[in-house]
Amino acid sequence: MSTVIPDVASIEDATFAAHVQGLLDVKTKPVGSLGVLEQLAHRLACILGSDAPVLEAPQMVVFAADHGLAARGVSAYPVDVTWQMVENFMAGGAAVSVLARQHGIALNVVDCGVARDFAAREQDPEDKLPKAGQPRLWRRKVAYGTQDCSQGPAMTEQECALAIRNGVELVKRLPGNALLLGEMGIGNTSTASLLLSRLCGVSVADVTGMGTGLDPQGVQRKIAVLQQVLQTHAAVTEPLPVLAAMGGLEVATMVGAVLQAAAERRVIVVDGFITTAAVLVASRLQPTVLQRCVYAHRSGEPGHTLLLQALGARPLLDWQLRLGEGSGAAAAWPLLPAACAILREMASFTSAGVATKAA
Amino acid sequence: MSTVIPDVASIEDATFAAHVQGLLDVKTKPVGSLGVLEQLAHRLACILGSDAPVLEAPQMVVFAADHGLAARGVSAYPVDVTWQMVENFMAGGAAVSVLARQHGIALNVVDCGVARDFAAREQDPEDKLPKAGQPRLWRRKVAYGTQDCSQGPAMTEQECALAIRNGVELVKRLPGNALLLGEMGIGNTSTASLLLSRLCGVSVADVTGMGTGLDPQGVQRKIAVLQQVLQTHAAVTEPLPVLAAMGGLEVATMVGAVLQAAAERRVIVVDGFITTAAVLVASRLQPTVLQRCVYAHRSGEPGHTLLLQALGARPLLDWQLRLGEGSGAAAAWPLLPAACAILREMASFTSAGVATKAA
Repeated sequence: MSTVIPDVASIEDATFAAHVQGLLDVKTKPVGSLGVLEQLAHRLACILGSDAPVLEAPQMVVFAADHGLAARGVSAYPVDVTWQMVENFMAGGAAVSVLARQHGIALNVVDCGVARDFAAREQDPEDKLPKAGQPRLWRRKVAYGTQDCSQGPAMTEQECALAIRNGVELVKRLPGNALLLGEMGIGNTSTASLLLSRLCGVSVADVTGMGTGLDPQGVQRKIAVLQQVLQTHAAVTEPLPVLAAMGGLEVATMVGAVLQAAAERRVIVVDGFITTAAVLVASRLQPTVLQRCVYAHRSGEPGHTLLLQALGARPLLDWQLRLGEGSGAAAAWPLLPAACAILREMASFTSAGVATKAA
Repeated sequence: MSTVIPDVASIEDATFAAHVQGLLDVKTKPVGSLGVLEQLAHRLACILGSDAPVLEAPQMVVFAADHGLAARGVSAYPVDVTWQMVENFMAGGAAVSVLARQHGIALNVVDCGVARDFAAREQDPEDKLPKAGQPRLWRRKVAYGTQDCSQGPAMTEQECALAIRNGVELVKRLPGNALLLGEMGIGNTSTASLLLSRLCGVSVADVTGMGTGLDPQGVQRKIAVLQQVLQTHAAVTEPLPVLAAMGGLEVATMVGAVLQAAAERRVIVVDGFITTAAVLVASRLQPTVLQRCVYAHRSGEPGHTLLLQALGARPLLDWQLRLGEGSGAAAAWPLLPAACAILREMASFTSAGVATKAA
């Protein structure tokens, strides 16, 4: 199986961007005084190609998979937590479940490669729409987790290509014009650190943190394992081979989803360290995906700051979140429709009869 | 008329605070991994005195008044903008109108001392409830703006006391358990700089900025005027006399509102520089008001950072907003009910059957 990468055209349009800025500048406020909120409005207008942007049917997709590397003790939690949290997402008790419900975001959970089969559910088959507010489980398992990448490649090229295709095809079936990224996989901050280190040429020690809660000795052990992984794959430098060698099935599926969402000109709301790493990989395949991204937050994981810098990203929140799941993207979500409403609904100085700045 | 200050009892309760923290710590997430979101949940629970907090009928109150000092050229905008923006709030075209509507926040506009009378409206008298989503204008005009405080006191002690009482009585009539602070008044960043400088003993040059858009020369002129004001009132140091000498009628009314909201144990959502200055004054009268405050954002106005530090406040957003109106409080609002939902609705490790951290 060869890897099919969707074509993502550039949406840069200086004339339209200036038109939108002009609309913002005559709103009843001093120029620029809504700061990040109006920058966000501008970006959403440019992504959606509308000077009266409306966000519709936002879709949170939580990509879940297990990691062979977890057997090397890189996480504070046992690997069973991956499938247990998938059950928690479906039951509505996880942070992302609560926040998605609170903000009217549809919740999709994708088994990209969890090391356990999930029982059949009422909502199967997939052509049956879940009830409003109920999560949907998408069965896109490529393998029962990756292989231990300190010993060899995490996945075969074929598995990697299949995961990417799954992400592409899944997004094609989603309604709306906004994709929120989430993930679950014990061990996947290691994956993100490895991808960042190799693709951006930074020391893995500088971009490795406590993940879900390692103590300082645990972080040192984690760094030693990751250095061994990088040594094992010292010759691998191109994005797709790097993804197959050291990535995760949830990351590979997310890469496909990001590419397809960008190709369809959806707004992509990026969460924390792991989802940003998936965006990094996607951007190495199609740099134009970055034009469609909004970054929800800067996480407490040290590598995230560096990764955001590498992508030229300015996140909306700085809340020291380090949970993943898409919790930050869901928490930040209501800021996006508010920004669109500013552009659509605020009066201009002329329409409101308000005097402008003194000459 | 003597000034009546509502009694604000302390709500510190170490046992209850520990109980709420215990609930947060067994949620299905690594301890502390929701960062600022769970700190916010904890604070809201403690303010409302409930381990299953629910925010009800949030009320944005925009306090509006004019300033005699504006005649000295301390603002980039003409004074007519104050009443014109009040009309814009009522017509639904201002930023705070759009954001309040977007997030289901009731919008109240208070004429505390605007230099113009507003025409009678359909919603008068006040015992007639406005239609859902429609703003209400409260007529609480104490004077047609303050006097030029570079020449003498901005208001008399009686006017100051009346404005405070107006704020107290207004909050008593508001439904719900959350008060969002907003303001409008050409010249009122000067007021905030003066109050901060005198009450915290900092140089006015360090806490004076461009306001709605002065150029650097304008800022220098503004600082010179404010230094003259401080000189005029060099002997005035106590909070109430300082408020009367250099404050604004919207600030004094807000001080009363903050005190009453705190006395009723409402959540007080503080906006930018001017509303935080009102909280500063209120906290000098009743320090316990600070227990009830949530700070929406750090504004682009340089004095705001210093003022937030003085109050030990950590704002939710850092968005370089400098519009006022309550726009930052309204923008940040949905983060609060989301935090409450985390505490109310997230599963615990036990209830969800998820394994905890490895020993």
